[in-house]
Amino acid sequence: MNRPSGRTPEQMREVSFERGFSKHAEGSCLVKFGDTHVLCTASLEERVPGWMRNSGKGWVTAEYGMLPRATGDRMRREAASGKQGGRTQEIQRLIGRSMRAIVDLEALGERQITIDCDVIQADGGTRTAAITGGFVALYDCLDWMHSRQMASKNRVIKDHIAAISCGIYAGEAVTDLDYAEDSNAETDANFVMTGSGGIVEIQGTAEGAPFTREEFDKLYNNADSAIQQLVALQKQALGIE
Amino acid sequence: MNRPSGRTPEQMREVSFERGFSKHAEGSCLVKFGDTHVLCTASLEERVPGWMRNSGKGWVTAEYGMLPRATGDRMRREAASGKQGGRTQEIQRLIGRSMRAIVDLEALGERQITIDCDVIQADGGTRTAAITGGFVALYDCLDWMHSRQMASKNRVIKDHIAAISCGIYAGEAVTDLDYAEDSNAETDANFVMTGSGGIVEIQGTAEGAPFTREEFDKLYNNADSAIQQLVALQKQALGIE
Amino acid sequence: MNRPSGRTPEQMREVSFERGFSKHAEGSCLVKFGDTHVLCTASLEERVPGWMRNSGKGWVTAEYGMLPRATGDRMRREAASGKQGGRTQEIQRLIGRSMRAIVDLEALGERQITIDCDVIQADGGTRTAAITGGFVALYDCLDWMHSRQMASKNRVIKDHIAAISCGIYAGEAVTDLDYAEDSNAETDANFVMTGSGGIVEIQGTAEGAPFTREEFDKLYNNADSAIQQLVALQKQALGIE
Amino acid sequence: MNRPSGRTPEQMREVSFERGFSKHAEGSCLVKFGDTHVLCTASLEERVPGWMRNSGKGWVTAEYGMLPRATGDRMRREAASGKQGGRTQEIQRLIGRSMRAIVDLEALGERQITIDCDVIQADGGTRTAAITGGFVALYDCLDWMHSRQMASKNRVIKDHIAAISCGIYAGEAVTDLDYAEDSNAETDANFVMTGSGGIVEIQGTAEGAPFTREEFDKLYNNADSAIQQLVALQKQALGIE
Amino acid sequence: MNRPSGRTPEQMREVSFERGFSKHAEGSCLVKFGDTHVLCTASLEERVPGWMRNSGKGWVTAEYGMLPRATGDRMRREAASGKQGGRTQEIQRLIGRSMRAIVDLEALGERQITIDCDVIQADGGTRTAAITGGFVALYDCLDWMHSRQMASKNRVIKDHIAAISCGIYAGEAVTDLDYAEDSNAETDANFVMTGSGGIVEIQGTAEGAPFTREEFDKLYNNADSAIQQLVALQKQALGIE
Amino acid sequence: MNRPSGRTPEQMREVSFERGFSKHAEGSCLVKFGDTHVLCTASLEERVPGWMRNSGKGWVTAEYGMLPRATGDRMRREAASGKQGGRTQEIQRLIGRSMRAIVDLEALGERQITIDCDVIQADGGTRTAAITGGFVALYDCLDWMHSRQMASKNRVIKDHIAAISCGIYAGEAVTDLDYAEDSNAETDANFVMTGSGGIVEIQGTAEGAPFTREEFDKLYNNADSAIQQLVALQKQALGIE
Repeated sequence: MNRPSGRTPEQMREVSFERGFSKHAEGSCLVKFGDTHVLCTASLEERVPGWMRNSGKGWVTAEYGMLPRATGDRMRREAASGKQGGRTQEIQRLIGRSMRAIVDLEALGERQITIDCDVIQADGGTRTAAITGGFVALYDCLDWMHSRQMASKNRVIKDHIAAISCGIYAGEAVTDLDYAEDSNAETDANFVMTGSGGIVEIQGTAEGAPFTREEFDKLYNNADSAIQQLVALQKQALGIE
Repeated sequence: MNRPSGRTPEQMREVSFERGFSKHAEGSCLVKFGDTHVLCTASLEERVPGWMRNSGKGWVTAEYGMLPRATGDRMRREAASGKQGGRTQEIQRLIGRSMRAIVDLEALGERQITIDCDVIQADGGTRTAAITGGFVALYDCLDWMHSRQMASKNRVIKDHIAAISCGIYAGEAVTDLDYAEDSNAETDANFVMTGSGGIVEIQGTAEGAPFTREEFDKLYNNADSAIQQLVALQKQALGIE
Repeated sequence: MNRPSGRTPEQMREVSFERGFSKHAEGSCLVKFGDTHVLCTASLEERVPGWMRNSGKGWVTAEYGMLPRATGDRMRREAASGKQGGRTQEIQRLIGRSMRAIVDLEALGERQITIDCDVIQADGGTRTAAITGGFVALYDCLDWMHSRQMASKNRVIKDHIAAISCGIYAGEAVTDLDYAEDSNAETDANFVMTGSGGIVEIQGTAEGAPFTREEFDKLYNNADSAIQQLVALQKQALGIE
Repeated sequence: MNRPSGRTPEQMREVSFERGFSKHAEGSCLVKFGDTHVLCTASLEERVPGWMRNSGKGWVTAEYGMLPRATGDRMRREAASGKQGGRTQEIQRLIGRSMRAIVDLEALGERQITIDCDVIQADGGTRTAAITGGFVALYDCLDWMHSRQMASKNRVIKDHIAAISCGIYAGEAVTDLDYAEDSNAETDANFVMTGSGGIVEIQGTAEGAPFTREEFDKLYNNADSAIQQLVALQKQALGIE
Repeated sequence: MNRPSGRTPEQMREVSFERGFSKHAEGSCLVKFGDTHVLCTASLEERVPGWMRNSGKGWVTAEYGMLPRATGDRMRREAASGKQGGRTQEIQRLIGRSMRAIVDLEALGERQITIDCDVIQADGGTRTAAITGGFVALYDCLDWMHSRQMASKNRVIKDHIAAISCGIYAGEAVTDLDYAEDSNAETDANFVMTGSGGIVEIQGTAEGAPFTREEFDKLYNNADSAIQQLVALQKQALGIE
Repeated sequence: MNRPSGRTPEQMREVSFERGFSKHAEGSCLVKFGDTHVLCTASLEERVPGWMRNSGKGWVTAEYGMLPRATGDRMRREAASGKQGGRTQEIQRLIGRSMRAIVDLEALGERQITIDCDVIQADGGTRTAAITGGFVALYDCLDWMHSRQMASKNRVIKDHIAAISCGIYAGEAVTDLDYAEDSNAETDANFVMTGSGGIVEIQGTAEGAPFTREEFDKLYNNADSAIQQLVALQKQALGIE
């Protein structure tokens, strides 16, 4: 087998969650998928976007950023170039939708939680790490609210949410691509799934040749198995069960 | 059966292509998926982006826009608000990747083709109409180049490309969602596929409850069948075979 | 005679109005001055700009845009460059002032109508086509309101408004310049006039040598005659005798 | 007669030119039309815009600005709001075209002159003062170049250029409207004319009711006479003849 | 001694204040430090920034700008480049803090005064001239309010404020650097002090080699003495005592 | 004594440097001043800004940012608001000048090093931590270059550089203010000094009442002593001597 990292095809990188990384945020987590490190913070605000006012519902949104030297070559700071690029917007919209898929917005009440995912170091799979770690930050934020009788954690959080990338690298289906694989993969798909196995988002892209249904089904199977492992790791980190 | 339009679950809207809609563009097409009307133009330029210079390869890119009153309520003009929104960027990146998936960039030579997709009237499915019609504009652009001995049409265009949205509406899997369905669908997935059935892009999103593997497989089957019909319509419009 | 199009000096291009081009807008019209095609929509909103609130008066404003490949060479999309250029702003301010010149803002009531003029294909004279077609869209918007007892069409619309460009081309005064003429004209003047012959706007510019009073008077006479024809065509399209 | 300033209908405000107001600029002039004060500088640069390179021709362009408290109420600084408004762009394009109308760009050689017109204090007619004073700054810039054998002043500058506003105020045709008149005028027209009486630009706008041909002809006559006086004052200030 | 201007080391340039330079502003002053000319206006508005509303306190803020040809080479207009540069923001924040240091915001009442400092001509030391002249404009604005019983001038203005730059040029400590010195100075420090000798701001920067404590103390002494002279000149201009 | 943290007046917070925090950057360091945590990376690029090309000299510049939830309340992301605020620009200019003060740009050769300072967690004194930690990142970058024979570390780095804030809090001169002190301090001054005691930057601001010379001299003495300690800690972290 020939993954650059020496991993077996379905082997994920080592995953860890460092909770409470930020002293100010209501929930926070430094998530690592190998050399990909993302700081996720959950910030609670007692207001909702204008179009939701008086709806009785809350909102969960996300923002995504990358430190300029998180990558091999320094990238221009988006604040300096004056706008967030298309990739950034795509990712932060994905994270937001993923979080909302497992949150009961009515049970949250008219408040907003913002999940900020900032990539400290990048080695492929930053969006899947962000979603997986973002859940931990969100959970701790609800814990914080729960302990203050602001909301019922178990009513607001309906399920776990986690994400993984699977792709075809050197002709073989592999799980959790790192940068060396990602930049040479024929096909790359991101799966966002709940703890009970429901699909929330699938984004599959053929980088080179189009992929077949058989290939796609294989990726799907691998994702399903990886997500179960990630959810188990989330539970372990959060001390659930 | 209860689709608002009265269509059967797997029935697409009426699809038409009006080639040569624009007198200036090297290729152009007004594509209609029912009440969704998108003007697609292909513009050839004898230059490539800076990072591709002297690579011997060409580039195909896309831009997407919506007239302010293409929609039921007037939307703010992006030129006036000073930036393209996240949705616009997501869609135009998707169109560009889709086109590049069936183009041989080396055979194109060091030139750029820009596919502009401007929504004249919107009723759901603008991105899938844009990809399906964009292919026709691209094909006619290559025809234009072919007749001038600038490039070999059949070497540059490797396959057809078309797109369709499939989703779960009122508990049933339906094909080619219009706005009334789209805004109430539980699940919405866009499939971009080649004429030979390869997958180029899959974007599936659960709007409400997560979806199951069985549901997803059903959507996939429907998409496969719809794409075959769209490719046949493209061929008919282009007078191929 | 040597107009590139073979027209006689005072001959306008063929002018047509396709009403109801957009299914969503309260009023809409695809106006054609030969190969110049502009989609005009009128959008009604039940709000006015902040500085007009509680004034009891309404407002009519306009926005102008051009599809990137409306022109011979593709032009950069203003939404992508992040701002509307000086020419765009100049034109949309002109359209707005022209419409307001024939509208009774008090009779309109505290509402705003936005006239969007988007150039689908350009061949000179886009601003004059936009004003002439914008009137038709505005009229149909008032018709829509009239039939709902929201306003009295005849009290709000005080007169017709139309516009034409006249210039000196190859030493001769010509009417309704197309692109081939416009880019080589010595002098170019746009006239906006009411159905009763009053002047609302005159914009005359010497591109090469300054022009004389005699030349200007000739252009004025030609404009006067052309505007009368345009108003007759508007009436015909609107079914007003 | 009832002009707020007590002037006779065709009487201009007192006009003065203070040459050499700026120690750095190649040409400069503080022009005053009564309480309207505009600082005009001409800056020479040994480069032309990219699209003119190697054309053998030069370029003259203009920029216009207003100090925030040039007006009765403080206006937001355009640098702070992040863009130049439509009015600013309209005016600076007008000034640039006006200057180019009397300059031989080939005789100038491949260089650019920028006329900056900054309104220090505003009381109506800032654009006409800017053009009239801008000419003096331009002339002095050519003088500076002439004395260094860089260009022949008399070959580059083909004629004088000046501008005046005329309008209908309280039912009467008046010349050189100040702010009190401008904000209440029924009709306002700006005329840009050369020393030999040729027309370079006419911009007439009906603020209230449309105006008639007779009214317009009267404004034109008044402008013609005023421009002759302004040119005489320019000559006096420049010590010509 | 070898200052380019021939001044003695501690000799300031000639300083003058022309009050009432702008007819619209509540207070205004054209301040000159030799060839550095800054127009300062104070604009009163009956509103405060959102975060201060209902605080019972007022606010004083400042904006700074430079005409494009205030400098030896023409600089790009910030309104055209679409943002205020870092230097501009640094200076306007400094001016605002300096003014607030001597204003009793409660005595001012819930109103805002904006000090606009626009550099008409630059020759070094524009920020110190702006602060010194800005005080005069502010004082006159309070005078204007005082005479209308809107506020008590002597309660609002607690002290004088003025500023000077001191630096090491050619090895010697000099006061009030002009551009020729500033661009070659080893060290440059700006001091903002009150009439009673208190320090409000110190900004010292080593342009070349770091400076020693002895050097810094010498600059401080010189600044102290210069500020006293500036305050005396302010008093003379304002007719105080 | 009453510092909120219980520190003695001249006691700094615990300072630590975690070198090599980022795997991609040529030099990097996570610096902590108590609860203020700043990630500093040094990125080497083989190019210089346009205005320095062919000068034979290199350039060192800096950028500064703050994660949105580095602070007690979430702050808006500058990339989302579309520009870097005045405070950000002020700080990054300060960091850049500080680094250049101890670098021999000729010995560096025609290359650019960018010091990115991103605040992960803020508790006052972020700019002083950034400078102090930025030096460590810069030093390691030179070490990286030295080991590749690209430049001589000891010739390029002429001295240490470090920074500290000193202020008057509750009537007493204190060193290294944390957020609780900073937001209530009467006076706040930042000192940037070299290892040999030279001053590179002083920025002193009276937040409330102006400060006296005696107070300022006391702050200066405290800063001098603190900088010596910081330089000793840098040496220890870098393993120098």
